[in-house]
Amino acid sequence: MKETLKIGYIGLGRRGSGILQRCLCKMEDAQILYICDTEDARLERNCAAVQEAKGYTPKLTKDYRDILNDPEVDAVFIMTGWGGRPQLAMEAMRAGKYTAIEVGCADTLQECWDLVDTYEQTGTPVMMLENACYCRRELMALQMKKLGTFGEIVHCTGAYAHYLNDCELFKDIDTTERKHYRLDEYIERNRENYPTHDLGPIAKVLSVNRGNKMNRLVSVASKSCGLKQYAKDHLGEDSRYANIDYKQGDIVNTLITCENGETILLTLDTTLPRAYYSRQFSVRGTKAMVGEERQVVYLEGMEEGISNNEADFYDRFDHPIYKNTDVDALAGGHGGVDWLVCRAFIESAKRGIAPPIDVYDTASWMSIGPLSQESIRTGEAVEIPDFTRGKWAHREPPIQTAYCLDDVIEE
Amino acid sequence: MKETLKIGYIGLGRRGSGILQRCLCKMEDAQILYICDTEDARLERNCAAVQEAKGYTPKLTKDYRDILNDPEVDAVFIMTGWGGRPQLAMEAMRAGKYTAIEVGCADTLQECWDLVDTYEQTGTPVMMLENACYCRRELMALQMKKLGTFGEIVHCTGAYAHYLNDCELFKDIDTTERKHYRLDEYIERNRENYPTHDLGPIAKVLSVNRGNKMNRLVSVASKSCGLKQYAKDHLGEDSRYANIDYKQGDIVNTLITCENGETILLTLDTTLPRAYYSRQFSVRGTKAMVGEERQVVYLEGMEEGISNNEADFYDRFDHPIYKNTDVDALAGGHGGVDWLVCRAFIESAKRGIAPPIDVYDTASWMSIGPLSQESIRTGEAVEIPDFTRGKWAHREPPIQTAYCLDDVIEE
Repeated sequence: MKETLKIGYIGLGRRGSGILQRCLCKMEDAQILYICDTEDARLERNCAAVQEAKGYTPKLTKDYRDILNDPEVDAVFIMTGWGGRPQLAMEAMRAGKYTAIEVGCADTLQECWDLVDTYEQTGTPVMMLENACYCRRELMALQMKKLGTFGEIVHCTGAYAHYLNDCELFKDIDTTERKHYRLDEYIERNRENYPTHDLGPIAKVLSVNRGNKMNRLVSVASKSCGLKQYAKDHLGEDSRYANIDYKQGDIVNTLITCENGETILLTLDTTLPRAYYSRQFSVRGTKAMVGEERQVVYLEGMEEGISNNEADFYDRFDHPIYKNTDVDALAGGHGGVDWLVCRAFIESAKRGIAPPIDVYDTASWMSIGPLSQESIRTGEAVEIPDFTRGKWAHREPPIQTAYCLDDVIEE
Repeated sequence: MKETLKIGYIGLGRRGSGILQRCLCKMEDAQILYICDTEDARLERNCAAVQEAKGYTPKLTKDYRDILNDPEVDAVFIMTGWGGRPQLAMEAMRAGKYTAIEVGCADTLQECWDLVDTYEQTGTPVMMLENACYCRRELMALQMKKLGTFGEIVHCTGAYAHYLNDCELFKDIDTTERKHYRLDEYIERNRENYPTHDLGPIAKVLSVNRGNKMNRLVSVASKSCGLKQYAKDHLGEDSRYANIDYKQGDIVNTLITCENGETILLTLDTTLPRAYYSRQFSVRGTKAMVGEERQVVYLEGMEEGISNNEADFYDRFDHPIYKNTDVDALAGGHGGVDWLVCRAFIESAKRGIAPPIDVYDTASWMSIGPLSQESIRTGEAVEIPDFTRGKWAHREPPIQTAYCLDDVIEE
């Protein structure tokens, strides 16, 4: 086991610099060997932050290949924009670097297969940094599943319900030349474009890729009105963005059917005004439910009409991570979950073991993007490939670390 | 306009006798000429109730044809169990009786067409008594739509989320010989079996059948676990009901696409333990949302993170019915909405005008049952017939009564 992990860090935008500064800079065993971005200003700002926090100067580069070519580097964080992340990850894996990849979906299904093939050829692990897997509610549901509290699990819901027009897609668009890279996605494509915050925790609850798999999905998109209307109202009727026919439907619902008969509903909801952020996470079983919308834990036999009782169950069902750690007090943002997901990666990499979100999880979660696009285009259901090529049925149980998200089913 | 409406009332089960006693018995202009059921005890109980409330004795019959053959009868209420209601309605319509039909879905698509054809041949109106159309939240959304508050409406959700194992499907099954008629539906069929509480109000908000129409649906059902597990736990492992392979999936999600590009998500959720009853009603537009789950009204530009502010908007958006009436104080149960839907029917019938929920609404809402069954069976999307045969695009505007649910669009 390594004492410290030597990290090459690629991508210093808002998210990339956030994770670097709020998490890695505060972890003693994370040694920031390189930081990489194409912009000088970002390199300088983040270099200063590393110096301040760590007391040493990382190497700065605009060429990620400097990182991949350096045998000193153990692990790579890929925190660039949506497009091209899987390619970068594969290059890193071929260079033998334990690889972390920020959340998002793939552009194409082929990318997902390539990721799997690259892993199987190189043996280098890759992990999607899906922080929602480490949120308290989601981990509590995982704990309840492990305890058998749900009885047989039948249905789960999740969403990325986050109004992005203001805070992201059109942010500063009238005052800067830079357009957020995500806006191009909304212009060019109609799909479930951000599935992993909701699907990741659900896939773990349903043992997807370990005893279960996703078989089929159908996606249905509403018309696209929110972006154009927003641009008309905020940038002017004559503005360029008020005169684009955006392909992305405002609301995309995706229904997934699993091998073991469970169904999953995923909702993408990012371009219409809404009252609150929500992942609409729920788990339904024959004996219990967890539902985010009314923050409820319900066990069969309890009186009905319950709301906001979730915290009453922390004593009983909190995941050990939350029982043993004041997660909110951790640095890292998003209530500490960024910290947790980085720890999960770093501790796996230091030990050289499979990460809790592995290549099969990463590939299958990312595949929802291109698959949903195909379903919306054709109006028909599509098959979800089995990226494990049959291994899902009889995989070796994972090593049970504190951050492990998979059960060892006791038989 | 008639002073009183002479009513033949068919079906005196729990729901039928409830509506009779809590609503019609208390309405001066509702003259109960006949009550009809096949069971003596029900006839006697309800006869006594009418005598008590009205001071006269209705005619009692076990043969509904006595009612249809009596030229004195103006209107018929059909409150029998799910199966066979459309056939009864058609007989009543052919006998020239203004016809009310309790909520539910059709057994077959042909029934829906037959209902439309019978209306078009006879000119006799039929109205589904969809009380959810008269609920405060749903009517407020209708009012907001009329005021243009939503901007362009893009997506709606609804559900029938009501845990029925305890309170209905297996109620008293161990102590009586009588099995609730709905249980057979769950044994024999896999479908969205109760779509109208959620779809009705949404269809009105989206102007379905009047300027819009439903084009297509896809339904996905989870596995079926809840009923069997409940029977095992409550009736015993060896009980008959613990050894049935129920066809009905526990959760059925249905995605509908409309002509004008809106999408609708309907969820049937009746056989797994859940914390609360919900219709999960939401309306999403480019300028505002209404969402039941956190009881929220949100207008673009308001701060985010809002919950439970719905009542703050009654002053501004309450439908005139709720502005002008203390609906909760009305007799009728379900917060007065049964009363309202009965008034809507009776006042239309007395005036001889089209009811606010007409044959095209009734047929299209009921059709979701058989259509969803077909979609679940094949795994593919199915077309939703246009029961108006093209009239949806240019219908005569309805007469604007207090109970009207359709806009006159001012151009």
